[in-house]
Amino acid sequence: MVYAVIISTPWLWHTRMAKDAMLAGKYTGLEVSAANTLEECWDLVNTHEETGTHLMILENVNYRRDILAVLNMVKQNVFGELVHFRCGYQHDLRFVKLNDGKSAYGKGVEFGEKGISESVWRTQHSLLRNADVYPTHGVGPIATMCDINRGNRFSSISSNATKAVGLHDYIVKNGGENHPNAKLKFKQGDVITSTIETTNGETIIVTHDCNLPRPYSLGFRVQGSNGLWEKDGDRIYIEGQSEPHQWDTSKEWLEKYDHPLWKKYGEHAQGAGHGGMDFFVIHAFVESAKEHIAPPFDAYDAAAWSAITPLSELSIENNGEPQNFPDFTRGNWIKRTPYNWMKDTF
Amino acid sequence: MVYAVIISTPWLWHTRMAKDAMLAGKYTGLEVSAANTLEECWDLVNTHEETGTHLMILENVNYRRDILAVLNMVKQNVFGELVHFRCGYQHDLRFVKLNDGKSAYGKGVEFGEKGISESVWRTQHSLLRNADVYPTHGVGPIATMCDINRGNRFSSISSNATKAVGLHDYIVKNGGENHPNAKLKFKQGDVITSTIETTNGETIIVTHDCNLPRPYSLGFRVQGSNGLWEKDGDRIYIEGQSEPHQWDTSKEWLEKYDHPLWKKYGEHAQGAGHGGMDFFVIHAFVESAKEHIAPPFDAYDAAAWSAITPLSELSIENNGEPQNFPDFTRGNWIKRTPYNWMKDTF
Repeated sequence: MVYAVIISTPWLWHTRMAKDAMLAGKYTGLEVSAANTLEECWDLVNTHEETGTHLMILENVNYRRDILAVLNMVKQNVFGELVHFRCGYQHDLRFVKLNDGKSAYGKGVEFGEKGISESVWRTQHSLLRNADVYPTHGVGPIATMCDINRGNRFSSISSNATKAVGLHDYIVKNGGENHPNAKLKFKQGDVITSTIETTNGETIIVTHDCNLPRPYSLGFRVQGSNGLWEKDGDRIYIEGQSEPHQWDTSKEWLEKYDHPLWKKYGEHAQGAGHGGMDFFVIHAFVESAKEHIAPPFDAYDAAAWSAITPLSELSIENNGEPQNFPDFTRGNWIKRTPYNWMKDTF
Repeated sequence: MVYAVIISTPWLWHTRMAKDAMLAGKYTGLEVSAANTLEECWDLVNTHEETGTHLMILENVNYRRDILAVLNMVKQNVFGELVHFRCGYQHDLRFVKLNDGKSAYGKGVEFGEKGISESVWRTQHSLLRNADVYPTHGVGPIATMCDINRGNRFSSISSNATKAVGLHDYIVKNGGENHPNAKLKFKQGDVITSTIETTNGETIIVTHDCNLPRPYSLGFRVQGSNGLWEKDGDRIYIEGQSEPHQWDTSKEWLEKYDHPLWKKYGEHAQGAGHGGMDFFVIHAFVESAKEHIAPPFDAYDAAAWSAITPLSELSIENNGEPQNFPDFTRGNWIKRTPYNWMKDTF
């Protein structure tokens, strides 16, 4: 008897497979991002409500050691009243989106039928969608810190895209200007910046930057009335504790507030993927499934986080016009309470 | 006989004094920000055009050593085609906006008639305007790098403000909750984020963050098809020259591309204000005035940069609705050529 299912497929299969799994009564784990359209976001929520079956979006970055330490600081009110956040997915994926059809990260400028690995399906999203198509690694951790769908809510989003030069440049450099793919016009702007407003009066700046040469960074900032953490520069400032107007390196703060989960399972997680965080997300999924309880991030979170893709697309199409988020909780965000993030079990 | 005038007064005097100076035929230097409303932006431009008298906006950050080195890199195409920029004014000004009425930076929570120094006039802007009231330290350097009003133009801006908690918190902490100023409702959101689109397809994220405890940073990023500079973290990545996916510290790059002006006058500038950059901006002003030629940044730049204040205010009032920039050049941006930034004179 299968109790739980993990769906880890190309994006266009995510929602339809998750829906089928829930309809079959399986506790469902779904890889990021969860949905491609607003209709799919509602599909996840409605299927969860109709079946009573749980869905967990498997966002591993929520379990990164620094993220959980900062979440610990948030919960202990070290930053004071939360005001502003930054995050995003800034990852040079040119060599993932384009390859030689023989090896996953080999040089080459093919994709789709002529490509191999992720380029077979992922690149098509860059070709045809001018949208933040991969928002959850950034916005998942922030959503947890500011209690989205649990006393707070994404209210609106405005998005702006730059021109698209990165993928074309890469094709010309590596395949020559006469390669057929050099004629393609990629719709996805190289840097897409979205500003989300929350009902609690915070703003969240979300960046999608995957087609230009650059080192990896999710660009986190968590800022409140007492101070802030910035991942870029690895620094923290807390009024009354840091030297006035001087950054502390984040290291000592993050060690001091190391999360109970990492203290307990850190050694165990070492071998797991993505610096250990894959252990924790799967652990939380399995333990939640075994107890038949709601997971740390559920169908409402999957919907709200993933809605950034179609809403950013609509905003960009309309020259940055703000778009309202649907309330996937149907008003229940005002009475839903936060997950207990401070326990050391999962 | 007075040839030139420098106006360094509270903001509400800037445009009217600059206008009078131009009408009197004086080569006019105007401190930042230049104008408070769109009408004032047009006043500067129209008075310049009617009188033929030059106006220079005295933006000193354009002459910061790292900024001029990065501008040098831009002009030498090190970053490739420019795509994305970040900048802003992130400066804890609580102790400037509030004091005890006796010493400029002393503890105390008074302003206006009961305050002293800048708090006499500056704080009122935080009380009544929910806008980026101080955009030019960030956007001036970026505007120069991407040739605004000279082959490129700001086309639109969308702005979002967080709630306002910083100044109120400061008043309660330092003056007690029964202090009369603790009842004030400051309109200016603590963090204001604006996204500007340019006609060349770049985006510029401009931040105003002056009411919360934090170390100073103008938060620069300059990003193109070959790589990027980030001030936060002091790092540079240039494809083909940096180790793949690894940041270089910016130091060596900035030294290699040290600007001719700093090479020539760096020692001379040491004693001047704000790390030497005040020397260069005044030097450029005086030399331009002596030659009766157009300054490096002129009335059109003063207008376009300062227009961020009223336009961000309008966008915030309308929930982030994008606002179009007036074309202060009346179409001439398509034929105006960039200032020659590579010379070593001024």
